[in-house]
Amino acid sequence: MTLQSGKIIRAGIVGASGYGGGELIRLLGGHPHVQVARLAGESKSGSRIVDLFPHLNSPGVLEKVSDKEVWTDVEIVFFALPAGQSFHLVRRYIDQGTVVIDLGPDYRLGDPSLYQKIYGIEHGAPELLPQAVYGLPEWNGPRLEKTQLVACPGCFPTGALLGILPFLRAHLVHRTSIVVDGKSGITGAGRGLTLETHFPEIAEGTQAYKVLDHRHVPEMEQAMGEHGGGRVAFVPHLVPYNRGILSTIYMTLTAQATQESIDRIVDEAYKDSPFIRRVPSPPNTMSVRGTNNVLVYSRVREDRLVVLTAIDNLVRGASGQAIQAMNRIFGFGETEGLGYGALFP
Amino acid sequence: MTLQSGKIIRAGIVGASGYGGGELIRLLGGHPHVQVARLAGESKSGSRIVDLFPHLNSPGVLEKVSDKEVWTDVEIVFFALPAGQSFHLVRRYIDQGTVVIDLGPDYRLGDPSLYQKIYGIEHGAPELLPQAVYGLPEWNGPRLEKTQLVACPGCFPTGALLGILPFLRAHLVHRTSIVVDGKSGITGAGRGLTLETHFPEIAEGTQAYKVLDHRHVPEMEQAMGEHGGGRVAFVPHLVPYNRGILSTIYMTLTAQATQESIDRIVDEAYKDSPFIRRVPSPPNTMSVRGTNNVLVYSRVREDRLVVLTAIDNLVRGASGQAIQAMNRIFGFGETEGLGYGALFP
Amino acid sequence: MTLQSGKIIRAGIVGASGYGGGELIRLLGGHPHVQVARLAGESKSGSRIVDLFPHLNSPGVLEKVSDKEVWTDVEIVFFALPAGQSFHLVRRYIDQGTVVIDLGPDYRLGDPSLYQKIYGIEHGAPELLPQAVYGLPEWNGPRLEKTQLVACPGCFPTGALLGILPFLRAHLVHRTSIVVDGKSGITGAGRGLTLETHFPEIAEGTQAYKVLDHRHVPEMEQAMGEHGGGRVAFVPHLVPYNRGILSTIYMTLTAQATQESIDRIVDEAYKDSPFIRRVPSPPNTMSVRGTNNVLVYSRVREDRLVVLTAIDNLVRGASGQAIQAMNRIFGFGETEGLGYGALFP
Amino acid sequence: MTLQSGKIIRAGIVGASGYGGGELIRLLGGHPHVQVARLAGESKSGSRIVDLFPHLNSPGVLEKVSDKEVWTDVEIVFFALPAGQSFHLVRRYIDQGTVVIDLGPDYRLGDPSLYQKIYGIEHGAPELLPQAVYGLPEWNGPRLEKTQLVACPGCFPTGALLGILPFLRAHLVHRTSIVVDGKSGITGAGRGLTLETHFPEIAEGTQAYKVLDHRHVPEMEQAMGEHGGGRVAFVPHLVPYNRGILSTIYMTLTAQATQESIDRIVDEAYKDSPFIRRVPSPPNTMSVRGTNNVLVYSRVREDRLVVLTAIDNLVRGASGQAIQAMNRIFGFGETEGLGYGALFP
Repeated sequence: MTLQSGKIIRAGIVGASGYGGGELIRLLGGHPHVQVARLAGESKSGSRIVDLFPHLNSPGVLEKVSDKEVWTDVEIVFFALPAGQSFHLVRRYIDQGTVVIDLGPDYRLGDPSLYQKIYGIEHGAPELLPQAVYGLPEWNGPRLEKTQLVACPGCFPTGALLGILPFLRAHLVHRTSIVVDGKSGITGAGRGLTLETHFPEIAEGTQAYKVLDHRHVPEMEQAMGEHGGGRVAFVPHLVPYNRGILSTIYMTLTAQATQESIDRIVDEAYKDSPFIRRVPSPPNTMSVRGTNNVLVYSRVREDRLVVLTAIDNLVRGASGQAIQAMNRIFGFGETEGLGYGALFP
Repeated sequence: MTLQSGKIIRAGIVGASGYGGGELIRLLGGHPHVQVARLAGESKSGSRIVDLFPHLNSPGVLEKVSDKEVWTDVEIVFFALPAGQSFHLVRRYIDQGTVVIDLGPDYRLGDPSLYQKIYGIEHGAPELLPQAVYGLPEWNGPRLEKTQLVACPGCFPTGALLGILPFLRAHLVHRTSIVVDGKSGITGAGRGLTLETHFPEIAEGTQAYKVLDHRHVPEMEQAMGEHGGGRVAFVPHLVPYNRGILSTIYMTLTAQATQESIDRIVDEAYKDSPFIRRVPSPPNTMSVRGTNNVLVYSRVREDRLVVLTAIDNLVRGASGQAIQAMNRIFGFGETEGLGYGALFP
Repeated sequence: MTLQSGKIIRAGIVGASGYGGGELIRLLGGHPHVQVARLAGESKSGSRIVDLFPHLNSPGVLEKVSDKEVWTDVEIVFFALPAGQSFHLVRRYIDQGTVVIDLGPDYRLGDPSLYQKIYGIEHGAPELLPQAVYGLPEWNGPRLEKTQLVACPGCFPTGALLGILPFLRAHLVHRTSIVVDGKSGITGAGRGLTLETHFPEIAEGTQAYKVLDHRHVPEMEQAMGEHGGGRVAFVPHLVPYNRGILSTIYMTLTAQATQESIDRIVDEAYKDSPFIRRVPSPPNTMSVRGTNNVLVYSRVREDRLVVLTAIDNLVRGASGQAIQAMNRIFGFGETEGLGYGALFP
Repeated sequence: MTLQSGKIIRAGIVGASGYGGGELIRLLGGHPHVQVARLAGESKSGSRIVDLFPHLNSPGVLEKVSDKEVWTDVEIVFFALPAGQSFHLVRRYIDQGTVVIDLGPDYRLGDPSLYQKIYGIEHGAPELLPQAVYGLPEWNGPRLEKTQLVACPGCFPTGALLGILPFLRAHLVHRTSIVVDGKSGITGAGRGLTLETHFPEIAEGTQAYKVLDHRHVPEMEQAMGEHGGGRVAFVPHLVPYNRGILSTIYMTLTAQATQESIDRIVDEAYKDSPFIRRVPSPPNTMSVRGTNNVLVYSRVREDRLVVLTAIDNLVRGASGQAIQAMNRIFGFGETEGLGYGALFP
């Protein structure tokens, strides 16, 4: 992008009534180079932002998502819609030269037939897949800087891949016996009402779901494919707090390794990242709450390697990572709008 | 103060290892005109900040609080110590011209004999009391701007007074039958270990404490004295979340009043405040989480008036309000360093 | 009732798919004199109990609630339906001589026009109101023993009245300035899905609702009418735990009273109750979790009296108190099926 | 044992002030064949039970644990003390013929040198180890019935072994690549005060601890040794609720297996257990809260097998399983005193 970094760009958000949308409004509201100019929603169109999000004193009203008219007064559009609801619209924005950052899953999988198998929907814009870049900035940064279409990683893949990739790339772990145990706060299930997320049903206990069958696995394995490949056994869990994913990653070493050498691999992988930090003791998800930060911890014992990563699922797992990608594309500082300290406790 | 607003001032924090201190570090870390230059603690001196607060990637180490040497390289010192531990030190900073903002209770009560009765400690610096200003910026703003010594209000008085004072001043409510039911998140009890705040003892229930006997009552009644006086029946409760105080204030009207006229009194009282907003439905404390914001709701029915205020006890109830006072004193914009959106959910 | 106390009676539950129904199944399942013989639901009819309540290994399937056929093989039917849904059905059970215990509000208010005003529904069985007994066993025990129709008190009235009535009866408090601040766990809002009870919206904060406008107030004031009358300012709150109501009751004394004399009034009022106990420090709702027990605490200061009561809203505030009423009616021991210790922590 | 099952036995509890002790008092209080006759504590001796456990209206006072005098008026003593504090005392009870059920770790490991390595304490009663039976009733039932000394399994081993052993015994899984991810409620960390279990530090996030280094691993592997052996990679986590352990167990099949065949193995293993039930969807820990029940779920996909077990860590993971062992020893019905339904929600 050739925009000057001092410039203010105008942004639109489609699907602004969910938690991902709310976080985009909150975070972009503090970004020095972005003005949130347009907001649209589907079922909640016509609602005032302050009614949808009582914590945001925003004067706006949600427009209705329209297939007919696209916004021509924005440089970037964020999509925060479920799978398959925006193929036509995204194409129109791409065609008119607008940057599109999709927080949904539509452009994550390069293979449209795999997409159809996983999401049960025929892919409506396969011709866009080649130009979509998977928005994991620490691993795809250079490609991100040159794209017009970003597919933001899912929340669980973000936490898992940031812990796995350094070791895959280093050929240090057995590729087919990786286990990822994911523990997500309940916002990870979205703002839609379900019995599973009704407070009394989950507040004082925990529960796994989609055991060995979560849609995020093909996404993880595709990203691992760029670093030699691998398979993951993944079980996600709902844990009774609002925000945060702790990923407990179990790997088996292919050769002896000291704790120091393992730590060095993490440090080396993220030495240029302002967001990722290795910590000497197991991280609490609260230590990254509200931020785009990632804490990584590792522990070797004999041939076993456990890596823990802690992220905020709504920020690093969605809206914050999307903004980080935007910062790359427009040449802003990588931490612009994302420099807040975490809300601990 | 005659400092230029573009200037960077240097700040010190005494008592930096508790939750109030941690929030000061977090918030001042994002303040455009402040550099946190010195940090001291008592029992935790020698500890690294990052070990005390894993969410803050701060390189510093806590100095030991010293009675002998005072910092001469700071323009302002925040004290976050328990009652009675800093009389001598505060005096020395005042003497050398440093601004002192005390988050503790030592300078809140104007009458040293009342202080002794309530806190069981002889007041060690009664000569400073006349110059101390009670740091409720929306009510004491002009005096704040000219003082060198700020006594930050307690967390419960902040929430209660912001709801009561507009109606006391308007002579609209009976002064002796005010009831304040306070519901505080557990950070309000501090970082010290107690059985009451051991997770399993409070996580799945609620509990009152110091029924009709909390130290914050004399503080509330003193502040009410400036607006015609009044008495409060107050019961604080621990509620199982981390941050936030909801104050449910029950008052009796002295004359008929419509909902509109009541709302107008709130709007008028806070029309110049960038932080305080009236809301049309009962606020959730999460809507102000992590911020200096205050939400106010009122409801009239016959001769009964209920006012609800929601604050973050660590920010508006302590560190944020302290920074708001600092902004006033140094002529910074009132919201500098405090403009973040709330963490909801 | 002239049933022999060794006998097993057969019970039916109408509206068995909510939390109140689930607790009836759990508690009656451990009752030595009751067999749960019939279960019916509305929207969930056809569901297996074990699917509705995974903690209950019950083989049954919910029948459909029918207006046409009433069960003739049960001695007692518990109704746990919303307002206005069972007038016809209750009448048929009363007509055929079955004992009816209604956990809903239909028979709580003696005045059908007040019912219509509060619930917005014309009362469909006003001729039954004279025989309905308000099921607060410690206060209406003798009448309970002789009735065929019990109107179980609402959860908030249960907690409030048990704290207020001893002092009203003793003419010790001003009747028109009583304040009740209610704090309920989220099960109090039922099992129906709402945004307010979606985990992320309430888990890390608290919120008031129906300020000065809750349907339980007329019920409280009616019960107070039997002891000289009184008015209540009531604000309910949702607090993020599953079970329990803490009622903080603020009253003003009409004459001086010592703490000892106040305590004696509580002790005297409940000296015969196996469930109600006065405690010397403010109770935590967890201390009664899962039980029919009530803890009462009081504190006098000058002319102020604060009484705290802690109950489990699903047990003492609904299903347990219903079973206590049944025990009285059938001449079982008052604690039969209700003798469990509380789940603390 | 040759006691008659109608008889009442007298029981003592040593270490009655912690959560395990409290649950023993609660559960034994409802046991038809047991009278809790003696209670002792260490630091809390002299305290009243009702002060230690406000939910228990027990009149007793804790005696001081004494090495000099042992109780001669009890048939059974439960020990709930930390490692290494009761060697001498247990020996005396064994010598006088009293049944001893130890909830601590002293008699779990058969090898005293391994005990010393893991717990850092020289084993003080190695001569008792051969007679100690590991109290996992579904697997060691016959041996339990004949012993005088029971070593109750740790909470994590209970949840893990009940899920692993059926498949180890069936030679269906690779023995060296088993992963156990444990998620425990905070009561699992005990009643002692620590910063990690201070409410604000854990309430709104999650955290691993003792990664690959927990003392429960040797215990698991020893028990697995009786079924062909195996190795476990284990990471425990603290999750913000009070009670419950969810164990997510990842195994790799040695041969193809259908879901049906896997389910059959679980059903077969526990067909005689009144407490263990296979469920068709992932269990929530709340579904066993307050009970000795175990829910087991399994899921096969290609060569991967995931087994989930849900237990209440204080009941099935400690006090309840201890009572189940007692019931076996004294010939009581296996569910006596343990037949309550779970507290859901």
